[in-house]
Amino acid sequence: MTNLDAYRIAKEPFYRSVGGEVGLFEAAYRSRMPVMLKGPTGCGKTRFVEHMAWRLGRPLITVSCHEDMTASDLVGRYLLDAEGTVWHDGPLTLAVRQGAICYLDEIVEARQDTTVVIHSLTDDRRILPLEKKNEVVKAHPDFQVVISYNPGYQSVLKDLKESTKQRFAAIPFDYPEAAGEAEIVMREAGADKSTAEALVRIGARSRNLKGRGLDEGASTRMLVNAALLVAAGVPIMEACQVALVIPITDDDDLRDALTGAIAACV
Amino acid sequence: MTNLDAYRIAKEPFYRSVGGEVGLFEAAYRSRMPVMLKGPTGCGKTRFVEHMAWRLGRPLITVSCHEDMTASDLVGRYLLDAEGTVWHDGPLTLAVRQGAICYLDEIVEARQDTTVVIHSLTDDRRILPLEKKNEVVKAHPDFQVVISYNPGYQSVLKDLKESTKQRFAAIPFDYPEAAGEAEIVMREAGADKSTAEALVRIGARSRNLKGRGLDEGASTRMLVNAALLVAAGVPIMEACQVALVIPITDDDDLRDALTGAIAACV
Amino acid sequence: MTNLDAYRIAKEPFYRSVGGEVGLFEAAYRSRMPVMLKGPTGCGKTRFVEHMAWRLGRPLITVSCHEDMTASDLVGRYLLDAEGTVWHDGPLTLAVRQGAICYLDEIVEARQDTTVVIHSLTDDRRILPLEKKNEVVKAHPDFQVVISYNPGYQSVLKDLKESTKQRFAAIPFDYPEAAGEAEIVMREAGADKSTAEALVRIGARSRNLKGRGLDEGASTRMLVNAALLVAAGVPIMEACQVALVIPITDDDDLRDALTGAIAACV
Amino acid sequence: MTNLDAYRIAKEPFYRSVGGEVGLFEAAYRSRMPVMLKGPTGCGKTRFVEHMAWRLGRPLITVSCHEDMTASDLVGRYLLDAEGTVWHDGPLTLAVRQGAICYLDEIVEARQDTTVVIHSLTDDRRILPLEKKNEVVKAHPDFQVVISYNPGYQSVLKDLKESTKQRFAAIPFDYPEAAGEAEIVMREAGADKSTAEALVRIGARSRNLKGRGLDEGASTRMLVNAALLVAAGVPIMEACQVALVIPITDDDDLRDALTGAIAACV
Amino acid sequence: MTNLDAYRIAKEPFYRSVGGEVGLFEAAYRSRMPVMLKGPTGCGKTRFVEHMAWRLGRPLITVSCHEDMTASDLVGRYLLDAEGTVWHDGPLTLAVRQGAICYLDEIVEARQDTTVVIHSLTDDRRILPLEKKNEVVKAHPDFQVVISYNPGYQSVLKDLKESTKQRFAAIPFDYPEAAGEAEIVMREAGADKSTAEALVRIGARSRNLKGRGLDEGASTRMLVNAALLVAAGVPIMEACQVALVIPITDDDDLRDALTGAIAACV
Amino acid sequence: MTNLDAYRIAKEPFYRSVGGEVGLFEAAYRSRMPVMLKGPTGCGKTRFVEHMAWRLGRPLITVSCHEDMTASDLVGRYLLDAEGTVWHDGPLTLAVRQGAICYLDEIVEARQDTTVVIHSLTDDRRILPLEKKNEVVKAHPDFQVVISYNPGYQSVLKDLKESTKQRFAAIPFDYPEAAGEAEIVMREAGADKSTAEALVRIGARSRNLKGRGLDEGASTRMLVNAALLVAAGVPIMEACQVALVIPITDDDDLRDALTGAIAACV
Repeated sequence: MTNLDAYRIAKEPFYRSVGGEVGLFEAAYRSRMPVMLKGPTGCGKTRFVEHMAWRLGRPLITVSCHEDMTASDLVGRYLLDAEGTVWHDGPLTLAVRQGAICYLDEIVEARQDTTVVIHSLTDDRRILPLEKKNEVVKAHPDFQVVISYNPGYQSVLKDLKESTKQRFAAIPFDYPEAAGEAEIVMREAGADKSTAEALVRIGARSRNLKGRGLDEGASTRMLVNAALLVAAGVPIMEACQVALVIPITDDDDLRDALTGAIAACV
Repeated sequence: MTNLDAYRIAKEPFYRSVGGEVGLFEAAYRSRMPVMLKGPTGCGKTRFVEHMAWRLGRPLITVSCHEDMTASDLVGRYLLDAEGTVWHDGPLTLAVRQGAICYLDEIVEARQDTTVVIHSLTDDRRILPLEKKNEVVKAHPDFQVVISYNPGYQSVLKDLKESTKQRFAAIPFDYPEAAGEAEIVMREAGADKSTAEALVRIGARSRNLKGRGLDEGASTRMLVNAALLVAAGVPIMEACQVALVIPITDDDDLRDALTGAIAACV
Repeated sequence: MTNLDAYRIAKEPFYRSVGGEVGLFEAAYRSRMPVMLKGPTGCGKTRFVEHMAWRLGRPLITVSCHEDMTASDLVGRYLLDAEGTVWHDGPLTLAVRQGAICYLDEIVEARQDTTVVIHSLTDDRRILPLEKKNEVVKAHPDFQVVISYNPGYQSVLKDLKESTKQRFAAIPFDYPEAAGEAEIVMREAGADKSTAEALVRIGARSRNLKGRGLDEGASTRMLVNAALLVAAGVPIMEACQVALVIPITDDDDLRDALTGAIAACV
Repeated sequence: MTNLDAYRIAKEPFYRSVGGEVGLFEAAYRSRMPVMLKGPTGCGKTRFVEHMAWRLGRPLITVSCHEDMTASDLVGRYLLDAEGTVWHDGPLTLAVRQGAICYLDEIVEARQDTTVVIHSLTDDRRILPLEKKNEVVKAHPDFQVVISYNPGYQSVLKDLKESTKQRFAAIPFDYPEAAGEAEIVMREAGADKSTAEALVRIGARSRNLKGRGLDEGASTRMLVNAALLVAAGVPIMEACQVALVIPITDDDDLRDALTGAIAACV
Repeated sequence: MTNLDAYRIAKEPFYRSVGGEVGLFEAAYRSRMPVMLKGPTGCGKTRFVEHMAWRLGRPLITVSCHEDMTASDLVGRYLLDAEGTVWHDGPLTLAVRQGAICYLDEIVEARQDTTVVIHSLTDDRRILPLEKKNEVVKAHPDFQVVISYNPGYQSVLKDLKESTKQRFAAIPFDYPEAAGEAEIVMREAGADKSTAEALVRIGARSRNLKGRGLDEGASTRMLVNAALLVAAGVPIMEACQVALVIPITDDDDLRDALTGAIAACV
Repeated sequence: MTNLDAYRIAKEPFYRSVGGEVGLFEAAYRSRMPVMLKGPTGCGKTRFVEHMAWRLGRPLITVSCHEDMTASDLVGRYLLDAEGTVWHDGPLTLAVRQGAICYLDEIVEARQDTTVVIHSLTDDRRILPLEKKNEVVKAHPDFQVVISYNPGYQSVLKDLKESTKQRFAAIPFDYPEAAGEAEIVMREAGADKSTAEALVRIGARSRNLKGRGLDEGASTRMLVNAALLVAAGVPIMEACQVALVIPITDDDDLRDALTGAIAACV
């Protein structure tokens, strides 16, 4: 059996709890209830699930979903590998057999039909039929499915099926409040307090532009990038251009608006 | 021959009969008539077919249908497995040979052309030609096809062909009435009676919002999830948010409406 | 050479002739003229071709056509099977070599390009080139192509090419007249005469709703299903709901109209 | 080298010349000029090319083109066959090497990109590069490309590229004039003269309906089918329904118009 | 290493220079600058590149581009051939390694993504990474890329990417002027001077109809075809119909216009 | 382990710094921050990344992205090569293991789902899961991801996902200012100063036509091409036609405008 040690989180991942999300997740995990993490880009969903996997002592198998992911990519297939033809468990099957948390990141990117393979794992059956092997895998008692979902991305064409959504409890996520976000920026980028607070103010301003030309405001991750550039000697105005402005828009008016907001905050 | 023991239902699955559906299914099974289970998400269709398989003592082979399912996924193929190249019966062929009930869940997701392979099994021929093997499998006397169908999902682009529909007797399903649903919530989540009844009232309210912004109301499964969170110590208002509200809508007005309904019921 | 015994019809399939269709088919078969059976779902086209195959003493190879059927699915391919790599005749090639009737059911579902492979078999050449084998198979003198075609399914996007249509003689089919249909219902479901006649009246009523909301009326097959449920002890009103109403429409008004028609007939 | 005897036309195919088409083809063949046969369905293009192949003593390799035909289907590929992995010349390559006439029937059905492989064969280069084999095949001196093209089928979406069209000399085809067509019907179906003449009149009438609801009128092939049914004892009115009317239209008005025309001609 | 002798042009291909195109090409070749030949169908682009390859003493590898050409078709792949699994250089890689001119005919037909593989060969890097082999092939000093491009074919949907276009120097081509074109017709078809001149006049007339119903006028190649038919004894009016009129239009008015033009010129 | 020497830049690539881009890149590289190079075609992005790879002493693995690039093309796959079936690292995995800079050129051409594989490499996880091998590769400390992005190419249908964009710091690029561009033209093409300056003036003029018919103005690369043709003896007016005008537009008015601009500058 494949050893899942590579999927264990050795060191506690830093996570600053915002509300009751740690407790809610633990409550859901008690009955191995499938959990959906809902929130915008870069607000900490991935970090949270790593933190919970560490806290609960479970290996974490993450799958970045995409449009061309097939059911076999999740479940497994016969592969010609160096030892000849052998069955190869996919990441989902690995998690099911050995009791990992399986985290399907941005599940809405996957085709609805691929999503269907988790149905028998997310109701009381908790089984995964491997049709090509004529095997029905019963889920390990510790196995849990977690998915992430960014409400800003859905559309009529691309959304989870109602029969998928209804299988999950959903924990909402958002950017951390100011003090918390500044703490994260200081910690991750080694920034001093005033730089971190200025960047957090800039982040808040950019998020106000969401829906007025911007798809999303600057994420905490972008603030950390700006702080890292500052730490490497780049002046803060230029660091903000490179880390916060130029990556997210090519529109001159929006760039001016963002630049004005930055100038007002530093 | 592959042993179907993995597909037998060892323990009676709890099922609370609503109308005459158990008797109707048994009547249809007498002549092995193909059966379509029609109803909304999470109202118990899968549980019902498991119950009937147990009751009739037949193995149950479930296939979650999806858009990329090919005829070979159902029927079988030559596979390179660990023993070399061997023919591998698909789940449908297994069921046909050995007299299982084959349950095609959400069949409307499958491409119409895949659906076509069940045609010769659902009229008086009851045969399955395996063209790649030059074999014509005559169905085992106990074999039956069951499909599920959610009327809320159909569209002009995605519906069963008339020539498929006309092969099936259809048993309608809906959410259980209040007392029955409360009993299910108590049983599945270990909830006390008043919590269960409150949740059932909430479920009924949410179903009234169907068509007024919601695609579907909260299923019985979601009520069970809420009760499980309550049992794990989450306050009922928060448990309902996480289990019933946030998963199904990102619309603020709908969330407010649902939250008001919940407050009125607890 | 593959033995076609599995494709022979051992027992006379019951078929109640409606007009001169048996004679017409025999006349066409005399010059092995390709034949198209035209008519609605479930009116007996498949049964007719089985009857004719039995009558003419020819094996019958039926292919349910679908959108993903490739030319190779019809003609054959090199396959890795248990004996290694061998050429495998497809169902059409089998029929061509050994003089079977090849019945392509719902041919309009196949892609036009797949249909093209029958062209050289349906003019005076009567050959099938197997390009991958560098073999030109001359059709067995008894080989004949039969196709079915449901005029209700055609659309601008999906129709036979003119150059395909013009290769066929076409025999029209429709539901049997009342007495004949009642006889079929009695025979197939073991129904008594008055039940059978009531069901046939119901069928006629439902066919009048075609084009007024229904895609097609209830087929003879559905009437047999209703009769089988009655024979198993289901009351006739309920049996009609399950076998005739619920499978074909989810529209409340149409269901009411059908229910009214049923009540008036039993 | 594969023996092309299977592709030789042993017996003179009956062909009744209409205009100077035999001479034109011979003139084009003198310089191995690529030839396009242009005309409606079933007017004798395929028969003509068979006749010319016989007349010129060349083997004839016919490919029915379709939308999924790939360049490899024409040119060849490495195949796993019973002797292991071997290169397998496609039909075009066979013709190029050994000097056959290669007839690409309904070429407009093929994807434009597949058509491209004939470009280097239809200008003065007369070579076919087999890229997978690193071989450049110089065309046999007797090799010629012939294509058929039905002007009624073209559309903006599906037409030959200008750079393909300009490589061909085009010979126009149409239905034979009345006396000639009657002679064909008599010869092919063993019909007597008055039946043949009646059918030819019917054919002419149906062709007048082209563009007024009919995509194409009845082809000579359909007239032969009607005559064959008459010869098998079917009354002429019924034979015409089965062979000429029902196959080409489901429109009641058109059927009435055709039926009237038939009644007026017999 | 594969021998490229099959790709060498043994005999000087006849080419009648129009303007300074020979000198321009030689100037571009001096720095191995990528060259684009721009012009209508059949005006001599292919002949020109053959002539230049002969003149410069380089082997010429021509690839007719099409929509389904993959990067592997150009670059190479592991193939199962008669000797087992071996890497097989594609035509582009062959040319890169051994210093051939690689001519990508009608490159706009290829998918933009396939075109991308020439990018690293058409800037100062002059390398071709074979990712599947972990090999980076440095281009032979004599290697050059040449592409053809017909401005009449482009559309919004199908055009070269700006970042591809900007890598090429472009040499414009057009039909030869009258005397030159007559000389070509005489030489290629063995026509006498007055026939050749008449055909050239006809060609000029047809090119005036471009944009007035015709996609392109008659190419020089078509004039040669007409002359060849005349040489084989076909009267010039009929030869022009077959070689110049019927292949390019099915529109009666355009055919009349062309026929009138022909009558006026002979 | 594959030797990356083929991917090392042996000789300093000439790069004329425009603003602070070298310093910014070095600052970003200090924390191995993912970098996006934003700018128009042919302005030096590729040259810049080569220069930086040389400067930082890292191997550079460049991938030209395209629409059909799959995740396996980046990550690797089991391949049948000459030694049998072996795992083959893709270019991204090679870079991840051995600490190269991986440059994904024109990433927006790749399908969004392919882009997803870089997500776990561009946040603090810095891991690449090879699901087919059950291996989680931790990035070499020197590994960095660099992408290029041409703002002129994006559209609603084809853009980076917000969750991808937010992972990158972005350095803007544009054409060099006049003196710098002239220096490049002199250096790369061996042009004299006055020719170089004239060409640079022409380039500036053509860039003013962007948005007025031209998708993009002439790149520095095109100016170099023109200079190379001049160096090979082509008169400057003709060289500009061939290198700057004809490749980028077929519109007569635009060609006239460009020609006028050229005449005014030389």
